[in-house]
Amino acid sequence: MLCLTSPTQAAWIEAALDDLDAVLVDHAHCEIKAATNALSLASRVPAAMAPRLAALAEEEVRHFREVLDVLGARGLALGMPAEDRYARELRAIAHRTAPAGRSPQETLVDRLLVAAIVEARSCERFKLLSAALAARGDAELAAFYDELFASEARHYRTLVELATESWGGDEARTKARLERLAREEGELVLSLSGAASIHG
Amino acid sequence: MLCLTSPTQAAWIEAALDDLDAVLVDHAHCEIKAATNALSLASRVPAAMAPRLAALAEEEVRHFREVLDVLGARGLALGMPAEDRYARELRAIAHRTAPAGRSPQETLVDRLLVAAIVEARSCERFKLLSAALAARGDAELAAFYDELFASEARHYRTLVELATESWGGDEARTKARLERLAREEGELVLSLSGAASIHG
Repeated sequence: MLCLTSPTQAAWIEAALDDLDAVLVDHAHCEIKAATNALSLASRVPAAMAPRLAALAEEEVRHFREVLDVLGARGLALGMPAEDRYARELRAIAHRTAPAGRSPQETLVDRLLVAAIVEARSCERFKLLSAALAARGDAELAAFYDELFASEARHYRTLVELATESWGGDEARTKARLERLAREEGELVLSLSGAASIHG
Repeated sequence: MLCLTSPTQAAWIEAALDDLDAVLVDHAHCEIKAATNALSLASRVPAAMAPRLAALAEEEVRHFREVLDVLGARGLALGMPAEDRYARELRAIAHRTAPAGRSPQETLVDRLLVAAIVEARSCERFKLLSAALAARGDAELAAFYDELFASEARHYRTLVELATESWGGDEARTKARLERLAREEGELVLSLSGAASIHG
């Protein structure tokens, strides 16, 4: 799906359904992080690209509000975020696999591509959640995750486009870097424990 | 105005009109910071209060998009934020004037009140900008700042309400702390240089 090189294993969806509350709380934090990251990137991209990141941030905040509504209906508190090993290791991979003396432009492209990969993985997992919830008879939450799945796929494409534009439209170079990072992400995901979190 | 103890001096509005472009760029960064701060606070408040902070964050992101439109029309780039002495010193004041061994609840109330004071000062300055721009014949930008003025006043009230609720509805205690911080902010503002930025 999208750029992903390894599908999520069956153990994850079992863990997620076993502790759906934990997944929902983690999901709310993912939306906060995505919004904050898009706002931070808006200062770093060329001026013409900033409005698309601002629009993306607004959509993530709207999703955050929607997930908060779901938490509220289930009597769940947001609380402080757990450590996000997935995101931390993905950033470390980008750093480790970058050419020596990475330019500011290469750093920016990597941040955009890492954000794109996070959206791609969220997208895949939302689809899995949606299908599993529908099978369990939770039509409302299944529909919610189906909508978010479509939205994350759009965000993925926007972020890859912005990365390509940051490299002056060099699609081949962007694709090569995205593929490299996605291969590493595929291995990272296999090494994770299958915890009840969006990227666990 | 609102909780403020000292009005902005005439030198500020002159500096702001002399370099309106710098004020607009700084304003865009203020909206990013306000949105990010509201999202961060949403994890720290009791669950029932989080949705109001999320709604506030969404409004700040929408304002950010609107200011970006203004920047785009004027051919201005956002770029990285300048150092924000006002916000840094305001946080330092809250820390310095807090009781020894400040509880997590007191820390939270202070964060909410500091955010409220920042909104109050923005509110006052947007009103000044709106009047000065109208006098200069820039009706469109004057109307924009007039709308934002009203919105910042609402945000101020929301944040003070959330601070009061965080203290179990203790209005007297919240008022006393707000007044103390606002007195200090009044002195801080007089000590600033009158630079062309929203809180300069």
